[in-house]
Amino acid sequence: MGKILTIGIAGGTGSGKTTITRRLQRQFENRVTTLYHDNYYFAHDGLTMEERAKLNYDEPAAFETELLVQHLAALRRGEAVEGPVYDYTVHNRSAQTQRLEPSPVILVEGILILADEQLCRSLDIKVFVDADADVRILRRIVRDVRDRGRSLESVVNQYLTTVKPMHELYVEPSRRRADIIIPEGGHNDVAVELLIRRVQAHLQEEQNG
Amino acid sequence: MGKILTIGIAGGTGSGKTTITRRLQRQFENRVTTLYHDNYYFAHDGLTMEERAKLNYDEPAAFETELLVQHLAALRRGEAVEGPVYDYTVHNRSAQTQRLEPSPVILVEGILILADEQLCRSLDIKVFVDADADVRILRRIVRDVRDRGRSLESVVNQYLTTVKPMHELYVEPSRRRADIIIPEGGHNDVAVELLIRRVQAHLQEEQNG
Repeated sequence: MGKILTIGIAGGTGSGKTTITRRLQRQFENRVTTLYHDNYYFAHDGLTMEERAKLNYDEPAAFETELLVQHLAALRRGEAVEGPVYDYTVHNRSAQTQRLEPSPVILVEGILILADEQLCRSLDIKVFVDADADVRILRRIVRDVRDRGRSLESVVNQYLTTVKPMHELYVEPSRRRADIIIPEGGHNDVAVELLIRRVQAHLQEEQNG
Repeated sequence: MGKILTIGIAGGTGSGKTTITRRLQRQFENRVTTLYHDNYYFAHDGLTMEERAKLNYDEPAAFETELLVQHLAALRRGEAVEGPVYDYTVHNRSAQTQRLEPSPVILVEGILILADEQLCRSLDIKVFVDADADVRILRRIVRDVRDRGRSLESVVNQYLTTVKPMHELYVEPSRRRADIIIPEGGHNDVAVELLIRRVQAHLQEEQNG
């Protein structure tokens, strides 16, 4: 396999980063492999469900980022990896894994990927997706309350006690490492087209050898 | 002439927008035409040099933006225009004009171009180049004191009395209209390459008709 283009897509909860990731996946289908940082949450098999629910999932220490960096390096060498799978229903890493095949384009998505210096060094294009905090919390409420059936009270409580302070402490400063900042994430057609064109140019060069 | 791609490059003083503009010009040479908002400062023939020196040049009202919008529309129709030329040495519009020929790519550069709604509607890609305020003022001081021979005191005075307040009032809010934000402007190779690839794709499509 020729040169591989790696794109990191970071940004706070509700910023629109997943929408951008999905648009790139739809556009390039089997020529793109995606690593989700969320799948690399540490396993906590020794804790009860109740204890696991109380952990802080919004700080860099919650992630086994070193494993993600290893997997990204393997994919760049053209090797397939067995990626971990996180199970939200039990707040723990699943016993299952998923096979990730190398492809010419690798996306790495997560709120905190730019907070890790080593990971950043493995990314050719570092994108920070941005939206106002009020817009982001509204999206999160709709997603968690309407789509995931959680209570409004628990969403508000989690947001104020961990999501917001961790955003300000880790996510927001990590935008410093971004190569470009995309405002109004997923619905920003002009910015998405810029990324699409960049990927197309890469695929074309690979094809022409 | 086929479809024309228009790119607006905005950002505060010292943000690096001119460096980005120059890199695109070098890359695409005669396939790009650039409109500088600064050349559209209003003429003030009725004022003395001393009076003109005291005007506020950092607010939208200082520019004849309507003329720039007309010129941009003419270029998009494939017509050449006689663009105004601003003479900094006398703080006034020069008697000379410069002929601007239409090309497949038109750049529009200036601190306040995104502050004008009508102009924004004529721009396909709206870029806001960003840098910290301390970095920006350092660049401005080096440029104005070392390269343009102005006194440090006059630069500091102008910065604090008009440049900074106008930046906060008009330039900073106009980033809201940007499609992408480029941190650390001219030295951001990854972001510049994104723009270059986008322009190349446009030129290729034009060529393939």
